[in-house]
Amino acid sequence: MQEPVLRQDHGHVVRLVLNSPANFNALSLEMIDALSAAFRRIESDEHVRAVILAATGKAFSAGHDLRQMQAARADDDAGRAAFEQLFSRCAGMMQMIPALPQPVIAEVQGIATAAGCQLVASCDLAVAAEGVRFGVNGVNIGLFCSTPMVALTRAIAPRAAFEMLATGEFVTADRARELGLVNRVVPAKDLPQAAMELARTIAAKLPAAVHMGKRAFHEQLRLGLGEAYACAGEVMCENMLLPDTDEGIRAFLEKRAPNWA
Amino acid sequence: MQEPVLRQDHGHVVRLVLNSPANFNALSLEMIDALSAAFRRIESDEHVRAVILAATGKAFSAGHDLRQMQAARADDDAGRAAFEQLFSRCAGMMQMIPALPQPVIAEVQGIATAAGCQLVASCDLAVAAEGVRFGVNGVNIGLFCSTPMVALTRAIAPRAAFEMLATGEFVTADRARELGLVNRVVPAKDLPQAAMELARTIAAKLPAAVHMGKRAFHEQLRLGLGEAYACAGEVMCENMLLPDTDEGIRAFLEKRAPNWA
Amino acid sequence: MQEPVLRQDHGHVVRLVLNSPANFNALSLEMIDALSAAFRRIESDEHVRAVILAATGKAFSAGHDLRQMQAARADDDAGRAAFEQLFSRCAGMMQMIPALPQPVIAEVQGIATAAGCQLVASCDLAVAAEGVRFGVNGVNIGLFCSTPMVALTRAIAPRAAFEMLATGEFVTADRARELGLVNRVVPAKDLPQAAMELARTIAAKLPAAVHMGKRAFHEQLRLGLGEAYACAGEVMCENMLLPDTDEGIRAFLEKRAPNWA
Repeated sequence: MQEPVLRQDHGHVVRLVLNSPANFNALSLEMIDALSAAFRRIESDEHVRAVILAATGKAFSAGHDLRQMQAARADDDAGRAAFEQLFSRCAGMMQMIPALPQPVIAEVQGIATAAGCQLVASCDLAVAAEGVRFGVNGVNIGLFCSTPMVALTRAIAPRAAFEMLATGEFVTADRARELGLVNRVVPAKDLPQAAMELARTIAAKLPAAVHMGKRAFHEQLRLGLGEAYACAGEVMCENMLLPDTDEGIRAFLEKRAPNWA
Repeated sequence: MQEPVLRQDHGHVVRLVLNSPANFNALSLEMIDALSAAFRRIESDEHVRAVILAATGKAFSAGHDLRQMQAARADDDAGRAAFEQLFSRCAGMMQMIPALPQPVIAEVQGIATAAGCQLVASCDLAVAAEGVRFGVNGVNIGLFCSTPMVALTRAIAPRAAFEMLATGEFVTADRARELGLVNRVVPAKDLPQAAMELARTIAAKLPAAVHMGKRAFHEQLRLGLGEAYACAGEVMCENMLLPDTDEGIRAFLEKRAPNWA
Repeated sequence: MQEPVLRQDHGHVVRLVLNSPANFNALSLEMIDALSAAFRRIESDEHVRAVILAATGKAFSAGHDLRQMQAARADDDAGRAAFEQLFSRCAGMMQMIPALPQPVIAEVQGIATAAGCQLVASCDLAVAAEGVRFGVNGVNIGLFCSTPMVALTRAIAPRAAFEMLATGEFVTADRARELGLVNRVVPAKDLPQAAMELARTIAAKLPAAVHMGKRAFHEQLRLGLGEAYACAGEVMCENMLLPDTDEGIRAFLEKRAPNWA
């Protein structure tokens, strides 16, 4: 039996690979739980400084596992409890990504639709291959992508998001970059390397500073200006008091590389 | 006497047409009330699945009716009560658009200024003809577009909005698309058809799913991530429990068209 | 001894110039206090209708004064109190900009990094010379730009902001315009003139309307739609009741220039 998520360690970078190409990396309960478990292990692993989320096969992910969902209709409650559990577990997994101390980079090939597009939008950063298509196309089968919308509307402008959601139409990688869903678009053959370079760039920074900064990023986003500054000011102060930050600034002023612990 | 708003039914699509070209479709109290009444009729009409908001003449809308507003200065209170009423009724009408169950598409020709630009920004989607210009230019006559700003700053990035508001300068349709105010820009001769195609694309979806999704879209936008997922997760669950969604997913898995009620 | 901030009056436009090129206009305590004092004088000066924030030398501003910060590590508390004071005073100065009644335009040459980029993002509008680079690159020396992030994430899309923050990489002026950080990009030789033209465009408007509008802009940004309209509707009403607005509208209807007090 195949592992739904593979983990590949490259120095301080962990590459997680969705590994269910036969069903286009559907976010079945097993896949959601495997991702959650992988994130949980990374969360407390100080060796890990950046995470890449990649996938095997023709699709990054085609979203929820429709066959598994349809099967739950045979339950006594016509599936209600199963659907509640699925959406709750899936939303919990998606929210683990901004909550992880390490930045998470989506490495997107093929196609990312519905909850697969949500997964991309939930990552901190995204690199996509030329030709990739993104969609929140559940509306085409009568299931509006309401949960993917939560992540999507926090990444791109509202009217562009609504167009995708209400029409079910796809956008290209280039349009996704214009919209702010994707940070970088590269030729397909360069995709793993481009994601790895971005991950390594981040992994070369002082991890404690990156962790503080990522936490503060999400904490301050929805606050008023004064509250946001109060939050960020405290973080800056704690960051300044790290011995490695003393060394980092000292090294900069002395025009040499920092000698971090 | 002319009707200020014409209604044209095309299958499941209603096209509302601002029909006061002589004053550039000014949003007089009569026009505001006619639009409100038209929206109210559509709100409870299950036959209507998408709405187009179009206009006759050289302008989509040039905003408030300045002559009507100036006339109120002769009132005992120098117009205060009349102005309060006007802005309150106008804001109420603008807020009916996101509150409608059906998506509303602005079909913009000519020029859309001040409250006319607000009307475009209040729609869920917008299609504009090449050459259209958008402005929130009240500042040029000493009346900063504070109410249009509410809709505009929820559609486009803040500094681009402030530039338009503080300078009174116009942006082209192409720039409006870059900024996210407009979804599609087409040659003027193709405008009605492009808006209709977009409306028909949406009208072909399962109406209940679109209604749930549009409501959830607006509900979750300003919530924190956890609350937004709680809201959207409930909506997904209700959506899954629709018999037509069962049929939609079943049809997809069986590679056939859905047979919706 | 050099003044850290020069003030140049051009009619109704005040041009403030960061004047510490030797340390790339570092935001030392002295610079922060000088800016705060300059803003305070402008705040209550009815003659001033628009403000330009410019700089001398190779950099607009390279952010905090690292040497001054490092010196505070010799304090009994290893610098904690000094750092708290610095970030608090700096955040206070940054928040004075949206709180000023007059619009503030950043005129950016050379490079704007860390708190220097925050200063640009805190202005209402920004004009940049071709070739300018923007970065929030503190992460490179172990100090994540958490306070600059507050202003940056309120100006540009979140994932583009996070990329800049976590990688420390720079963006060009053109990319900054795409992202919404900068309103206009002009050849370096035209920079002061372009900023002055923008300032004069704004200074030609009715000042009271601009002040009301700028205040309402910031007040309504984070409110729900209904509350935002309630706030903006009141402002519109007060704006309409200004005698100069009466004159402005009257002049427009009579196709003549307004005769403002």
